[in-house]
Amino acid sequence: MIISLKETAERLKTANELILTAHISPDGDAIGSCLGLKYILEQLGKKVRIIIDDDVPSFLKILSGYNDIEKPQEESYQADYLVILDACLDRVGSLVEKCKAPVLNIDHHATNDKRADYLYLAAERAATAEIVFDLGQELGVEFDKESATAVYIGLATDTGYFKYSNTSPHTMRTAAALLEKGVRPETISEAIETKDFAIVRGLAKALQTVELFADGRAAGLFLEYDLTETIETTEGFIDEIRIIDGVDVAVLIKAVQPEVCRVSMRSKVTDVSKLAARLGGGGHKKAAGCTIYKNLYDTKHYLMDEIIKSLEV
Amino acid sequence: MIISLKETAERLKTANELILTAHISPDGDAIGSCLGLKYILEQLGKKVRIIIDDDVPSFLKILSGYNDIEKPQEESYQADYLVILDACLDRVGSLVEKCKAPVLNIDHHATNDKRADYLYLAAERAATAEIVFDLGQELGVEFDKESATAVYIGLATDTGYFKYSNTSPHTMRTAAALLEKGVRPETISEAIETKDFAIVRGLAKALQTVELFADGRAAGLFLEYDLTETIETTEGFIDEIRIIDGVDVAVLIKAVQPEVCRVSMRSKVTDVSKLAARLGGGGHKKAAGCTIYKNLYDTKHYLMDEIIKSLEV
Repeated sequence: MIISLKETAERLKTANELILTAHISPDGDAIGSCLGLKYILEQLGKKVRIIIDDDVPSFLKILSGYNDIEKPQEESYQADYLVILDACLDRVGSLVEKCKAPVLNIDHHATNDKRADYLYLAAERAATAEIVFDLGQELGVEFDKESATAVYIGLATDTGYFKYSNTSPHTMRTAAALLEKGVRPETISEAIETKDFAIVRGLAKALQTVELFADGRAAGLFLEYDLTETIETTEGFIDEIRIIDGVDVAVLIKAVQPEVCRVSMRSKVTDVSKLAARLGGGGHKKAAGCTIYKNLYDTKHYLMDEIIKSLEV
Repeated sequence: MIISLKETAERLKTANELILTAHISPDGDAIGSCLGLKYILEQLGKKVRIIIDDDVPSFLKILSGYNDIEKPQEESYQADYLVILDACLDRVGSLVEKCKAPVLNIDHHATNDKRADYLYLAAERAATAEIVFDLGQELGVEFDKESATAVYIGLATDTGYFKYSNTSPHTMRTAAALLEKGVRPETISEAIETKDFAIVRGLAKALQTVELFADGRAAGLFLEYDLTETIETTEGFIDEIRIIDGVDVAVLIKAVQPEVCRVSMRSKVTDVSKLAARLGGGGHKKAAGCTIYKNLYDTKHYLMDEIIKSLEV
């Protein structure tokens, strides 16, 4: 059932115990949204746990509450609501099975499958964190510096630090209000940008694989399993080829298992969410992804063919 | 004489002919501010020329009005005011001599030498473009999409795309108001970031050479002459290693001739300008450089030894 921001706020107000979760491969928006909403709810006296069915990237350790994020290790969970942030039900892992509470879904992905019991979907928002800010306003809770920092990281992550086309006046006004709470933009950007030496070496190896397709309108990076299993994250790798002059669609394909590839796509013009959806994934027009159950070689040839066919310019 | 924003607006209102200029080596803020103020003044019926005593970087060609920017090729200039944006008098080149009009100086650099006839200095603003926006408000002029884009590039350039510590709530609210005029953040970031494929391949090769020193407190890239002669620029390469966790000083050494190496250094804590100065170069505390007349191998061993000795943390 689609509900409004106001009804979302009302439902949160009437609940006492809540479990917050987000998608696997959690990013800054997934975690920032969870931490921001947890702060709001705790200010209202609620009992709140954040449970994520995956590792949380270490760059987010600057966020207060990082160490309290749990994995779904218990057999079953009780709550008044299972709140799914920044994802549909099918991307949160085992928690949906383990927790039989009504699902309250808060998301900004237009591709949301709308299976949640209650869904507040604001596709015009650049980040779920931006919705969490709206919820704070609606519920009359002022963020402190730490929770504002979590929400800010969500905005910064999902807008490529305010560079992507989803960055709206509302995004910037939200950022302004969060800066007023004491958020330090340079601390956040340093944390987001800091990479382990292993990642930089991984990037060096990844960039060796760069290839252009379709007369330079598409570019790809192709990471073998023996590379991806040695590096913690490939976040940001795709940006290194997205900026190549003339490239519309940039693709990063990484073998996360010998026969399973995770695909990220970024585009300037072509709507990549259509292709991602057709392949069982999702995302936005200009940033989408999917998983393909083939080895790297087969995935590359299959996907690049599909991308070349789907190029709109 | 120090004047207020209001008086600055009043003086601009009473003038009829104005020449706008900014510092040599103009950046996005210098040019964005000039184009933004030119738009405001033209809306008020003024006759306005932008004259810059240097080449304007080509990435700014996306700005409407880029082609109308002149160089000071005439013997002398007449105007009611020479408006100097984003600089003191001593950084604008020959125009100060050629134009004897009263100088109206609009700047955000705390280091401004205050020699102008009339100076509006707002050191709390991240960019001069932010002041130009304030002037638009004061003068009751609404920016159109093109002029808003120019002002936005000023903000984005001087805040490192909203990452530096100078980014304030006012900066973000200004950005929000400009986005409402139709500014496309992705178009601006693409223009600023776009690189040729050859540069990206060059980066891939450069990153192969990454090495850590002094227990990871220094990192270096070492580019042989046969690599550097094939790529147009190495700008931004050093940022790829500056962000390595634990690194204080990042160094890029490139052989620009078989026996001549150009050195760039970036630091988080250590003052690298001292070492650069000792080696015949210069720069700022956190970004400095020099030239060493040895081959790459000798330069590397000599310089890394010197850097390790100079580390402050």
